[in-house]
Amino acid sequence: MNDKHHKNWKDKLHEIIYEADTPAGKLFDVILLVTILASIILVMLESVKSIDVKYHNFLNISEWVITILFTIEYVLRIITVKKPLKYITSFYGIIDLLSTIPKYLSLIFAGTHALVALRALRLLRIFRILKLARFLGASNMLSSALKASRVKISVFLFAVIILAVILGTIMYLVEGEDSGFDNIPKSVYWCIVTLTTVGFGDITPQTPLGQFIASLVMILGYGIIAVPTGIVSAEYSSQSKQKEEPKKDKVVHVNTQCCVNCLNDKHQDGAEFCYKCGCKLHHD
Amino acid sequence: MNDKHHKNWKDKLHEIIYEADTPAGKLFDVILLVTILASIILVMLESVKSIDVKYHNFLNISEWVITILFTIEYVLRIITVKKPLKYITSFYGIIDLLSTIPKYLSLIFAGTHALVALRALRLLRIFRILKLARFLGASNMLSSALKASRVKISVFLFAVIILAVILGTIMYLVEGEDSGFDNIPKSVYWCIVTLTTVGFGDITPQTPLGQFIASLVMILGYGIIAVPTGIVSAEYSSQSKQKEEPKKDKVVHVNTQCCVNCLNDKHQDGAEFCYKCGCKLHHD
Amino acid sequence: MNDKHHKNWKDKLHEIIYEADTPAGKLFDVILLVTILASIILVMLESVKSIDVKYHNFLNISEWVITILFTIEYVLRIITVKKPLKYITSFYGIIDLLSTIPKYLSLIFAGTHALVALRALRLLRIFRILKLARFLGASNMLSSALKASRVKISVFLFAVIILAVILGTIMYLVEGEDSGFDNIPKSVYWCIVTLTTVGFGDITPQTPLGQFIASLVMILGYGIIAVPTGIVSAEYSSQSKQKEEPKKDKVVHVNTQCCVNCLNDKHQDGAEFCYKCGCKLHHD
Amino acid sequence: MNDKHHKNWKDKLHEIIYEADTPAGKLFDVILLVTILASIILVMLESVKSIDVKYHNFLNISEWVITILFTIEYVLRIITVKKPLKYITSFYGIIDLLSTIPKYLSLIFAGTHALVALRALRLLRIFRILKLARFLGASNMLSSALKASRVKISVFLFAVIILAVILGTIMYLVEGEDSGFDNIPKSVYWCIVTLTTVGFGDITPQTPLGQFIASLVMILGYGIIAVPTGIVSAEYSSQSKQKEEPKKDKVVHVNTQCCVNCLNDKHQDGAEFCYKCGCKLHHD
Repeated sequence: MNDKHHKNWKDKLHEIIYEADTPAGKLFDVILLVTILASIILVMLESVKSIDVKYHNFLNISEWVITILFTIEYVLRIITVKKPLKYITSFYGIIDLLSTIPKYLSLIFAGTHALVALRALRLLRIFRILKLARFLGASNMLSSALKASRVKISVFLFAVIILAVILGTIMYLVEGEDSGFDNIPKSVYWCIVTLTTVGFGDITPQTPLGQFIASLVMILGYGIIAVPTGIVSAEYSSQSKQKEEPKKDKVVHVNTQCCVNCLNDKHQDGAEFCYKCGCKLHHD
Repeated sequence: MNDKHHKNWKDKLHEIIYEADTPAGKLFDVILLVTILASIILVMLESVKSIDVKYHNFLNISEWVITILFTIEYVLRIITVKKPLKYITSFYGIIDLLSTIPKYLSLIFAGTHALVALRALRLLRIFRILKLARFLGASNMLSSALKASRVKISVFLFAVIILAVILGTIMYLVEGEDSGFDNIPKSVYWCIVTLTTVGFGDITPQTPLGQFIASLVMILGYGIIAVPTGIVSAEYSSQSKQKEEPKKDKVVHVNTQCCVNCLNDKHQDGAEFCYKCGCKLHHD
Repeated sequence: MNDKHHKNWKDKLHEIIYEADTPAGKLFDVILLVTILASIILVMLESVKSIDVKYHNFLNISEWVITILFTIEYVLRIITVKKPLKYITSFYGIIDLLSTIPKYLSLIFAGTHALVALRALRLLRIFRILKLARFLGASNMLSSALKASRVKISVFLFAVIILAVILGTIMYLVEGEDSGFDNIPKSVYWCIVTLTTVGFGDITPQTPLGQFIASLVMILGYGIIAVPTGIVSAEYSSQSKQKEEPKKDKVVHVNTQCCVNCLNDKHQDGAEFCYKCGCKLHHD
Repeated sequence: MNDKHHKNWKDKLHEIIYEADTPAGKLFDVILLVTILASIILVMLESVKSIDVKYHNFLNISEWVITILFTIEYVLRIITVKKPLKYITSFYGIIDLLSTIPKYLSLIFAGTHALVALRALRLLRIFRILKLARFLGASNMLSSALKASRVKISVFLFAVIILAVILGTIMYLVEGEDSGFDNIPKSVYWCIVTLTTVGFGDITPQTPLGQFIASLVMILGYGIIAVPTGIVSAEYSSQSKQKEEPKKDKVVHVNTQCCVNCLNDKHQDGAEFCYKCGCKLHHD
């Protein structure tokens, strides 16, 4: 109870940076998201030559400012957490690192700073930050449906790739170099383009036999697109049925408080201790 | 009872314009639909140069005639309703305005009158006018299924866009300008074209590495197309189950009578007062 | 019982032509199918110039032979049935007529004889002929699922077309003639190509703004493809559930016997009278 | 019990080659998979001219080495099995043969050795070898769902092909040779490309009428893609419901032991005799 008053600057910073329940924490998160968005747009604009010629200096300096801000944030995140290694090796920790490195690397290797666009991954934070329980629920159901159908989809994709190798080889033998089927890897590429119904049209069969086989490939692709869809939709239905029933007596409100010790951030409203490591949680 | 005989011209007009239960109201609606269709076809034909050269005057005059008719209709709709502001700010009110403005704007800004095609939105009225309860039921179920899966689909689309930004940047680094991947925005555009299995083929990877990554993108796109489908079909199944059961004791016949006061138009047959604002309904 | 021996030639022919339970009837149907297939292949080959130049006479004579055979069959079908008008106006009757007319028409209008390919529709007979109850069951379930979702799919397609008109107009205004968006009808065509994820690539947006809008159109198309799939699969599931339950006590074996009077062809094995018109059925 | 000690070399080899429960058997299978993968990559690389020019001898010799190894393996598989004919005519037996023949054939017919890529089919063995019960379960459910919907999908594909023939002919008549619709087979090919939403864009309609019909074809294709998806997903849901219930009391652990007599390889852990032919199983 009274340790709230003894909160040091580390705990305060932790609350601001990692949580979104206090006004300061919310403000921090909104500023963070806007900065990420701005930085992605900057990188995109810099890649457009006509714009880069005009505003090169402005773009470059802005990117450096944002990169330094991100570096400071990254260091603060490490300092304010009790187990820094756990943060560094966590999903968001790795993304945060990947978002700052490319700009520094561009000093050594020219041309790599476009990788700054990896910062887009940081936008995933939006789900946590906005504290939209609905969004979290929806994405949880999505990801659990995907997890449940992962094995089946792997089997399916594996079969599709074997199919693409075999059909690609046959097309290479039938069409040959004159139609753009220069070698087997390229034919396999064509086969994937066709099976997935993308159909770029950069390579197309020219001989009647090739067009006949291509027709079979397309009808096959049309038929098998039904399989992953069927899997996911069956899995998703059963997920939503399971979720519906036990929901009634399990609704608890989860906030974004984040344990200083183990980074677990799914605490109930009013929780005093982290339910994972037993560490005291700090409320305002 | 006897106030039916005292109906003034405003109420009569209201009945003709807003409702489709009387012969006059039906005729009005049919003429309206035909006029909308004619006007859309006129705009389309005018955009075809070879036709425009020959029939420019005829097309232009017809469009002006229709625009003036629509303007009169719009004014009448405002006059005959008790709360004009409610109509003006309603969905159909905005569409009606957007359908008349472009032609007038074309007097000031040349080239904008093609926006007259926005009139196509007015065709949505067909659902109300035809008074097809079946259609209304079907579109209600559709829209409620879409509403229920809205959050999930937003999560999904958001993830797709983040994915497109990252994969687009990678393709920009791998392929570069020689293959048409001029800048990151264009690469992201290519990535969306590929992930959605549209596959225009205006930009295609040329290097073996680029084609390999493109293959991964396509297989990914093939896999994730299953997700929204699964969501909608699971949601839709549960919608139709919910609808089936309580339906038996809830079937009431709804007509197109439209309250003069609040524009609510889902009254039961035989209703005397609007169930929303309590205002008296006018029958013939 | 004894009227089987009095069967006249008309009844015998009826049995051979319309039914597939006797050896003669089966043989007739197999020959018919082979002839239809042969005739379609002939028309296809004739359209290939290099083949037509070499074998023109052979192809032309073969087609005339088949056309005359089909004409004789058509006349016999009319003669051997008790209500010729019912046959002529039935689905198969119209197809049979459409299959013979084009060749005769080609005497008057050159170039129309390719319509002989309409004979492909006659192949639909295969479902009846092969007497595959499984196939019939499957196609019945398919068609009833499609019928049940017809209204919903119409609503959906209507919405897609309105969308295509509006988005097409916007693309016409944004891109203009330089990118191939010559006029609104062509832009609407492009929009349908894109929304359906076909993506020919004959017309593609060139300006950044156009590519941005195109991206939105594609993501929209990707999202809405889920709708009809969801509808059909929900409808189909409920169809198969309904079918599963009452099936246990309702399994009857249906043969291809065809009533001389009303052309109804779904009689149970051992049926003596048509269950629709009460007319006596003829067994061997 | 004691016959384990009398195991002759044939039985030992059988265990190594056909089973994956002993360390030796596992090692053999892993080496086999790696060799298959290596051989496929070799064939692919050889088809790339620039690589073939540099490393022709290395690639050729490696392929011969692998082919000879596969031949030895094939012979050993025949020798160590009690009923060689059963193996030779089994699914994997045929694939094993098809994987070795092309290289020998290339001595007689130049250019056919690319068929070595058929070895990709041998990769299907991965499912058995990895002993992933989960994978086996997933692929079993997949294949039984596909089997159950086989008839319905055949009906559907048959209808699609008839549709493609008719629409292809109409497009041939409408567009003609100027737009690339040279003959009916090519038009049918275009029609399949469009109906399946692949859309290469090598042939595209040029006339307004052709584009209008193409739009209809695309919307049709968009609509009917829902059908196979709906079928598979309904079928798959019912499959997974059936599987869920009886599973609880039926879980047995299956190993990869393979009967010397009948090649049946789905024995329970601890089984002493083959449950199909009653032949003694050999454990270590």
